[in-house]
Amino acid sequence: MSSISAETLLKRHQKLSETLKAGGFAGAVFNPGPSLVYFTGMHFHLSERPVVLLFAPGQAPALVLPELEALKAQGLEYELNAFPYPEDPSLWGAAFEKAVAAVGLSSGRMAIEARSMRYLELGFLQDVMPEVKFVTAEESIAKIRMYKDAEEVAAMRKAAQVAQEALQATMPAIKVGASEREIANELTIQLLKHGSEPEIPFSPIVASGPNSANPHAFPTDRKLQEGDLLIIDWGASIEGYFSDITRTFAIGEVEEEYKRIHEVTLMANTAAREIAGPGITCGAVDREARDVIEDNGYGEYFTHRTGHGLGMEGHEDPYIRSDNTLPLETGMTFTIEPGIYLPGRGGVRIEDDVLVTEDGLESFTDLPRELITIN
Amino acid sequence: MSSISAETLLKRHQKLSETLKAGGFAGAVFNPGPSLVYFTGMHFHLSERPVVLLFAPGQAPALVLPELEALKAQGLEYELNAFPYPEDPSLWGAAFEKAVAAVGLSSGRMAIEARSMRYLELGFLQDVMPEVKFVTAEESIAKIRMYKDAEEVAAMRKAAQVAQEALQATMPAIKVGASEREIANELTIQLLKHGSEPEIPFSPIVASGPNSANPHAFPTDRKLQEGDLLIIDWGASIEGYFSDITRTFAIGEVEEEYKRIHEVTLMANTAAREIAGPGITCGAVDREARDVIEDNGYGEYFTHRTGHGLGMEGHEDPYIRSDNTLPLETGMTFTIEPGIYLPGRGGVRIEDDVLVTEDGLESFTDLPRELITIN
Repeated sequence: MSSISAETLLKRHQKLSETLKAGGFAGAVFNPGPSLVYFTGMHFHLSERPVVLLFAPGQAPALVLPELEALKAQGLEYELNAFPYPEDPSLWGAAFEKAVAAVGLSSGRMAIEARSMRYLELGFLQDVMPEVKFVTAEESIAKIRMYKDAEEVAAMRKAAQVAQEALQATMPAIKVGASEREIANELTIQLLKHGSEPEIPFSPIVASGPNSANPHAFPTDRKLQEGDLLIIDWGASIEGYFSDITRTFAIGEVEEEYKRIHEVTLMANTAAREIAGPGITCGAVDREARDVIEDNGYGEYFTHRTGHGLGMEGHEDPYIRSDNTLPLETGMTFTIEPGIYLPGRGGVRIEDDVLVTEDGLESFTDLPRELITIN
Repeated sequence: MSSISAETLLKRHQKLSETLKAGGFAGAVFNPGPSLVYFTGMHFHLSERPVVLLFAPGQAPALVLPELEALKAQGLEYELNAFPYPEDPSLWGAAFEKAVAAVGLSSGRMAIEARSMRYLELGFLQDVMPEVKFVTAEESIAKIRMYKDAEEVAAMRKAAQVAQEALQATMPAIKVGASEREIANELTIQLLKHGSEPEIPFSPIVASGPNSANPHAFPTDRKLQEGDLLIIDWGASIEGYFSDITRTFAIGEVEEEYKRIHEVTLMANTAAREIAGPGITCGAVDREARDVIEDNGYGEYFTHRTGHGLGMEGHEDPYIRSDNTLPLETGMTFTIEPGIYLPGRGGVRIEDDVLVTEDGLESFTDLPRELITIN
């Protein structure tokens, strides 16, 4: 949960105005999600009650929100007009109408974020802005949030530290006979104990044995067994900024091939971290990791991109994907997380959180990356 | 996290088919969220990668999903056709096209849930189903989920117990000088220790002093002070089913009016629990609580509805709102949570989770409701 200064917010509004003008947009609308926090400093949950910020360059933004959250929009240090609506849904449309009138947005193209905007909010907006064309402008808005300032970097650095400490405190619970779910629970407790905000970025992934071959497994009641690979993928939240780390462990003695895929994955992780830096494209970073894995014969088992942007969202721009021609720039933060997954048997992933600096790369994460055997 | 039997899932598909036919829908589409879990037993997070289930009566459902999650759709005990797409977004549309063809949905009205469906998924669907009209059918789908079966009730009962135990274990941390954030953190830890799943329904609300006058406050660094009212609103998750409880405490000696608003709120809570039962409308339950508060002169400070449905979502149907003419029926589960909020001073809320039974009402929650003073 961040508390963002009015100065920072107004700077962000300025950037948003420039972005919208450059894109030929009359304005933008945001529903609850990271961008709404980023541009207003206000926190709302997605719920059955719509919340929408209407933004037009040069105007005070307008916020439609439920009456029972109206206090959140009071005492702000920047100008914002709030349009609260009462509990009866038949009266919600009127609040939207007033907000649209206040901000003067009745025609033109309106920027939306496709991955946040729900039909719930969009339906109301379309009703009261029939002449407006809503257009996905996710990438333009993401570009604003992609460059982290010193405060954001400090929060992310701390989120990485907290997550690493939490894993270390969880190590005694990781042993043959412990279930994935028990370990995930203990790790979550340790995240909170070590200072993560309660809204952790995602529930830890603890995937053992064959489950580790599923990159997005949910923890099950499966108990760790001798010979398993064990993937743990977890993160902390500090001031609303996330970490997202993965390490892979061997439970007792494991097959030679498991050691081999860990070694190859580590080489891929290292190669990607070494090449990444200002001016290198996202695609080239992905390529670097992928080449190592392909050259070692496991290309078909590396089924995902090499990484994703990280910040107020678990996944955000820049995406470290082979087709992404975006060059890295100072201030960008993302994960490097190659993996090899042998279906039905086991998988390996090694994930670090990094920042592009003038000199190259800073890794927020420094837990040992080697295959650690748990006996 | 629930593991739902194939028998239960097929029953749910049957009900969904009947609902769609009755509403004149050709089919329904779901993106990640509780309904997708309810109808498939599969768990996906909302992310930048779209996931959509296409459902048409009498057809095997079709699921569009990222390749790296394809394992989730394997080994199911019911028929489902999966259409995984690779990482490159330019190839995603093709997977949607194939899924639409497989399920034979090229015209007619398609049911969507406005509060889940994002523009991300909807955009792809609109592109590949240009003749289809997407229509909000939230209430019809919510009605299916509104009636809980014995297994669902058992999970909710346990979620209430776990939450209550967690609060009791947190009590020693609630004292003058402790911050809202510290208490929220400790309560979250205790929720996990007492058996809640890591994806708790919502971060605990711990709101003290003037913050307690904001029904949806987020915990801050404010420290508890003598004379504060303290609202704690929290819940646990068991098998993906939620509890959602609120109790209000007095920190040391508090103003007479604070005691009075607590007394009035408790009378309202009791009156609503006493009247609620089969055949009583949601509106009548809200009215009962509201009358008590209005008759005692605090009507304008009870700024929200009396409650909301509870289950796989923190807020769902039935909504206990004055304008809701829906009669309660056996199997419905919801909260009863009247509150009185004195702006700038303090607030009170008392929230219980209840099930409509043949005889009347069962309350899953039974923690003392009286104003407990913490010294």
